[in-house]
Amino acid sequence: MTLADSYDLDLTAPVEQLAAQLIDIPSVSGGEQAIANAVEAALRGQAPHLSITRDGDALIARTETGATERVVIAGHLDTVPVKHNVPGRWDDDGATLWGRGTVDMKAGVAVMLSLAAALVAPARDITWVFYDHEEVEATKNGLGRLARRHAALLEADFAVLCEPTSAAIEGGCNGTLRAEVTVHGTAAHSARAWKGLNAIHGLAPLLAALADYQPATVNVDGLDYREGLNAVGVRGGIAGNVIPDAATLTINYRFAPDKTVAQAKAHVEDVVAHAGLGEHELAWTDQAAGCRPGLDAPLAVSFADAVAAAGGGSPRAKVGWTDVARFGELGIPAVNYGPGDPELAHADDERCAVSEIQACRAGLESWLTA
Amino acid sequence: MTLADSYDLDLTAPVEQLAAQLIDIPSVSGGEQAIANAVEAALRGQAPHLSITRDGDALIARTETGATERVVIAGHLDTVPVKHNVPGRWDDDGATLWGRGTVDMKAGVAVMLSLAAALVAPARDITWVFYDHEEVEATKNGLGRLARRHAALLEADFAVLCEPTSAAIEGGCNGTLRAEVTVHGTAAHSARAWKGLNAIHGLAPLLAALADYQPATVNVDGLDYREGLNAVGVRGGIAGNVIPDAATLTINYRFAPDKTVAQAKAHVEDVVAHAGLGEHELAWTDQAAGCRPGLDAPLAVSFADAVAAAGGGSPRAKVGWTDVARFGELGIPAVNYGPGDPELAHADDERCAVSEIQACRAGLESWLTA
Repeated sequence: MTLADSYDLDLTAPVEQLAAQLIDIPSVSGGEQAIANAVEAALRGQAPHLSITRDGDALIARTETGATERVVIAGHLDTVPVKHNVPGRWDDDGATLWGRGTVDMKAGVAVMLSLAAALVAPARDITWVFYDHEEVEATKNGLGRLARRHAALLEADFAVLCEPTSAAIEGGCNGTLRAEVTVHGTAAHSARAWKGLNAIHGLAPLLAALADYQPATVNVDGLDYREGLNAVGVRGGIAGNVIPDAATLTINYRFAPDKTVAQAKAHVEDVVAHAGLGEHELAWTDQAAGCRPGLDAPLAVSFADAVAAAGGGSPRAKVGWTDVARFGELGIPAVNYGPGDPELAHADDERCAVSEIQACRAGLESWLTA
Repeated sequence: MTLADSYDLDLTAPVEQLAAQLIDIPSVSGGEQAIANAVEAALRGQAPHLSITRDGDALIARTETGATERVVIAGHLDTVPVKHNVPGRWDDDGATLWGRGTVDMKAGVAVMLSLAAALVAPARDITWVFYDHEEVEATKNGLGRLARRHAALLEADFAVLCEPTSAAIEGGCNGTLRAEVTVHGTAAHSARAWKGLNAIHGLAPLLAALADYQPATVNVDGLDYREGLNAVGVRGGIAGNVIPDAATLTINYRFAPDKTVAQAKAHVEDVVAHAGLGEHELAWTDQAAGCRPGLDAPLAVSFADAVAAAGGGSPRAKVGWTDVARFGELGIPAVNYGPGDPELAHADDERCAVSEIQACRAGLESWLTA
């Protein structure tokens, strides 16, 4: 690392200014060293009450007050690739911060760092987690690595992931599965089609079943999770004059967190089995459990109350899979809560309202000190 | 060309021996110069009654007796790539000739060359055509090139293409069309599938229509042509977590020669239009007209009689597209007639019975001299 890669962060600055400082440190996945160094240096220098563990470009910073409850508050340091949007910039009136990571999720990280320095004696112990490699393949995910190597340091009664939610509590997340269904046939020259069995035609009943499928909306712990069962890929064909002997449909099932992965797989297998396909096989290519919102837990109730008092709305279900599911796997109920419109994540015009950054800081502070 | 690439052919040898000589001259598509040179030299030296025109590696050799009728007899000089099957070899009993091109179609070319030298005063004038690049893309086809450059030299009342037919007359050929049907949708994250419109699901009604399609068998000039309408390729999908906004099905229609290309296109468009697809488009990617067998023409009747007298069976419809369609485009009725089982064409164990080579020579000789 050169001197030019060294950055100073002022954790006592207004939270939106701290967000701008973080945005100006490029940290595309795989290149988090500079921002992790800056965060570590700032916490060691400006938050001496925290017990800090570094692992690669991830950090765990814990208060150790001996409180009866402990919460994890987590966020990732990396971003998707920059598109001429680093360094960030302000709107003329200073109400909006533009740039890569404003939404996903350096404004959330700024809220965390600001509170990590300020809350020397919180009402409940806090484990701050900053991690790397969230925006790339799951095997590299820094939170997953911490869970494998430092599970004891992550133990908690509740977790908040500061992913963008427009400053509302979004509870849990759906799980996701992917399967490849391959229908078999018999190849033949297409001039003698009657000698073959067309595998692409054989997909017809499964596509019809998917087109007719009515996805469920499932209420879990008081929140509505909308499911979906969709073909996301199809391939088949050997040549323009050959009856194809195989055709493969890739299916993605987004399932509510009332189901285990095994139950979700059984449902997909059931849909495929009842479609009326000929000879076929089903192979699972990807799977990730969902996470219940746990909004009936006392800590969740108090958090929702604090967010409402800070001007936020009612909790809602998180659409899409996030790292809250990693807490679900550790048995820790978890919710998403952070500044920024999730629809703007990864967008070239990514931007975040200062009011949301301030609201999230206020909501979390109120809960953590009450 | 080096000296080693120069080959002598003996057109007076037994026809199966001549076939063996031709097989031992490698002539994979694009490498026909040596065999074309050998054929030209043999015809000029051993069949001085013929008027010869060379164009690239194709040859037109015509009798000019002033007869009232003229027939074209044609064959290609090239083969698909060699698979350790050149030079050729004989079965122990000499009844079968093995090697690349035995079936497709040097045994047929041997029949042509043997008769070209022998029939100095045939009952009807003959235009012998030997051409290149049959086994590759249609734009390179030597017969197509001759038709463009030397149409007058190809004028005739009837044509015989010596492609393998197990020594039976196979009349005409089906036409073929290929279309790509693309169904449109709206992309969305698969976690929010309800915001998109799944284009792969949108293929369902067309696949169902193709699966249910009952292909016709059409009698043309007394022969039955079996049609086929099939998906030969399918593709769609952006990523494993995206609702696809497009999916494309490639359809191949093999149609009887009672239809023009325009009529065949209208039929496919009708099937697609009535499938009940959403927003979609249809693009034609390939087309080739069929060819009527013309078996009601007097020359065809006499040919069928001659073949039957030489021990051959009744004429049948040709399955699959061949270069007879190029004669169809020139307004010349055409049939396939040659030694070898077409199912063995291009096979690694390509082989031809000597009896079929001899039968074809006898059948053609009887017709051409009667």
